[in-house]
Amino acid sequence: MSITITAFERSPDGGKGLARDTRVRWALEEAGLPYEVRLVSPRAMKEPAHMRLHPFGQIPTYEEDGLELFETGAIVFHIAEHHADLLPRNAQARARAITWMFAALNSVEPSILEIVTVKFLEGDQPWAKERMPLVQDRIRQRLQLLAARLGDADWLDGAFSAGDLLMVSVLLRSRPSGILDEFPTLAAYVARGEARPAYQRAFAAQLAINAA
Amino acid sequence: MSITITAFERSPDGGKGLARDTRVRWALEEAGLPYEVRLVSPRAMKEPAHMRLHPFGQIPTYEEDGLELFETGAIVFHIAEHHADLLPRNAQARARAITWMFAALNSVEPSILEIVTVKFLEGDQPWAKERMPLVQDRIRQRLQLLAARLGDADWLDGAFSAGDLLMVSVLLRSRPSGILDEFPTLAAYVARGEARPAYQRAFAAQLAINAA
Repeated sequence: MSITITAFERSPDGGKGLARDTRVRWALEEAGLPYEVRLVSPRAMKEPAHMRLHPFGQIPTYEEDGLELFETGAIVFHIAEHHADLLPRNAQARARAITWMFAALNSVEPSILEIVTVKFLEGDQPWAKERMPLVQDRIRQRLQLLAARLGDADWLDGAFSAGDLLMVSVLLRSRPSGILDEFPTLAAYVARGEARPAYQRAFAAQLAINAA
Repeated sequence: MSITITAFERSPDGGKGLARDTRVRWALEEAGLPYEVRLVSPRAMKEPAHMRLHPFGQIPTYEEDGLELFETGAIVFHIAEHHADLLPRNAQARARAITWMFAALNSVEPSILEIVTVKFLEGDQPWAKERMPLVQDRIRQRLQLLAARLGDADWLDGAFSAGDLLMVSVLLRSRPSGILDEFPTLAAYVARGEARPAYQRAFAAQLAINAA
């Protein structure tokens, strides 16, 4: 099996591991699958060859022996489906782990990414400064409920799963704002994710490209 | 098999079918599965009994013989996994259909839901009116790329799948703003989804509650 993913030629975050290829790298490392990386420039990302792989002109993409995928959640799911360490075999536990995958991407990440909208997409707008606290309060509301559900458990539902992999990755994006650290149990949860050898290999691999 | 989902006692959209229970109803109708609905009031949604089912205090939830799920995407996936009409059996086609499920919820819906933020969450803010065109332009950028990918095909990748079910559902939320109709191929795609008998049954079932 030959796997190739795409990543930013130069990540906008300068190597903090917040670009979405880190999530796919992490899943591949958890699964013990070797992979190649093709770096894509901002210009190449919008050219037909890449747009054919990714209709929205983004990274990461995933190629495996004729199969072409885009969309981080779907790629992580595809990897997880074949590896018991990322999705439990028990049918009900599996369905619940998949629930957390969707929850991370659909119920938690959008609120966190509003920070990107305020700071970058609308950073020069007159309302940017005044709007930021509203956006941050909505993130806090979400994280408070997530923290309540996690409680003092290590992971969201039993053993570490692809649901945790995505939730930790999403929460990492709330750390630069300081909001993650307002929730000590979530900060500890993220730290547990970061401590996993597979995460560390994934992080180091993206850093090697972006900190050069 | 006994299935119970939850829905708004009274949907904020007054029966337009935009609440997320409609997506789950549609999937259940496509699969030919009978189901019960438990209606939940705004107050009950935030009480412990419901929060235990849904950590973010929302609808829909899904209960099936001891299995409890939340998160629309995960529920639709669970239903689809057991029904070839919603997810192809061929492994590569299946992975691509799952990609469109994630793409609908993670790459298309967040931009569309920014309209809700502008109109309702921040409707009384001084920047609401000036901000709306920026939000709408970001939706247009996304829909333009989606329309380019769909081309003149009936569905996103071969036969109708759970990926189309979610994408049509997400696009429906861009219709009240008029943006959907700026993209005739996407408007026709949504109309094909709405014309499916399973969608019509799902729509009628939620309307019966909300238009009463």
